[in-house]
Amino acid sequence: MFITFEGIEGSGKSLQIGRAHGHLVRRGVPCLLTREPGGTEFGRALRRVLLSPDGGRREPWSELLLYLADRHQHLREEIEPALGRGQVVLCDRYQDATRVYQGAARGIPMDDIERVARLLGIIEPDRTVLFDLDVETGLGRARARNGSDPAAAAEGRFEEEDLSFHRKIRQGYLELARRFPGRIEVVDAGGSPDEVFARVRELLDRWLP
Amino acid sequence: MFITFEGIEGSGKSLQIGRAHGHLVRRGVPCLLTREPGGTEFGRALRRVLLSPDGGRREPWSELLLYLADRHQHLREEIEPALGRGQVVLCDRYQDATRVYQGAARGIPMDDIERVARLLGIIEPDRTVLFDLDVETGLGRARARNGSDPAAAAEGRFEEEDLSFHRKIRQGYLELARRFPGRIEVVDAGGSPDEVFARVRELLDRWLP
Repeated sequence: MFITFEGIEGSGKSLQIGRAHGHLVRRGVPCLLTREPGGTEFGRALRRVLLSPDGGRREPWSELLLYLADRHQHLREEIEPALGRGQVVLCDRYQDATRVYQGAARGIPMDDIERVARLLGIIEPDRTVLFDLDVETGLGRARARNGSDPAAAAEGRFEEEDLSFHRKIRQGYLELARRFPGRIEVVDAGGSPDEVFARVRELLDRWLP
Repeated sequence: MFITFEGIEGSGKSLQIGRAHGHLVRRGVPCLLTREPGGTEFGRALRRVLLSPDGGRREPWSELLLYLADRHQHLREEIEPALGRGQVVLCDRYQDATRVYQGAARGIPMDDIERVARLLGIIEPDRTVLFDLDVETGLGRARARNGSDPAAAAEGRFEEEDLSFHRKIRQGYLELARRFPGRIEVVDAGGSPDEVFARVRELLDRWLP
């Protein structure tokens, strides 16, 4: 079973996927924890290019192709072999992130993204946990964690540009949840990490009884 | 006018494109000399990933997407603006190299490559100089230049694997010349650099009278 974790910045998905992995391992479920971009050696080189702030200008399509190259390599090298061995694969961000960041936010037509993804054999996950949270709370958590400007974070003083970008991301994710109702499960990411994890564990134990 | 230079390893295209640029500059033609991969800052980061020998395994499609991302960025950021200013653009390798290396040699269907290229708005050059040479001579020159094993290079002792790969590349280029007879001009790359450049100069002076 292939399960992806998605959500806006500060929604807690990276913390929660680690706890989900620990929970499944303790239950004796053979399990691979991985992430995008950067699930392979090739992907880690691409991740450095993608996340480097001084990597030069990037056209939306140039970024899109790097995310898809990372995903194609990750599928062939790690995800598909693990699924073939009967492992549960937990992946931190996947194709829905591309649909939302490069499609909904950067404006590449969704049909074009799907067309290239089909050529590459990008499979859909079996299940997706989508952590949903209002963007002010999410950005506040992300900034407090990054320590960039905790005072601003605490007071909710954000640039309107950031807020509007993150609102597009959140709306994009919620639209995907309507488009893939059998696959995407929206989880309330509000409250303490323990409260959120109780919701995640309930889903995992239902999907993997 | 957009002119690309293509050819197998050791065909002398990088030397010749430099001389072509010098010739046009001396004639007072406004001219941009560039190359792929790596014509932009983003592209140079991708070039390091693509040409690094220890960058991990790469699927053919993963490599293809990086070359196309580099090309898309290069077109938008450098080539199209230069053409818009009326400059002649000379580019060392371009889409024909992708057709031949990722298509003919690595086995990605040509139709799939063209489909993604169309989505990205990859334009065809106006003219292409294709340097043609038997692969033994080309590999001999390339190895002598790289100094990797000059004795083997001089004696023509190559692994059969190398030869068969480079034969595919050469055949792939010659097939493209038949497919695009109005655009691709095959130039005999045999003989001294001065002899080869005389052939190149004759073409340039015909195309840009």
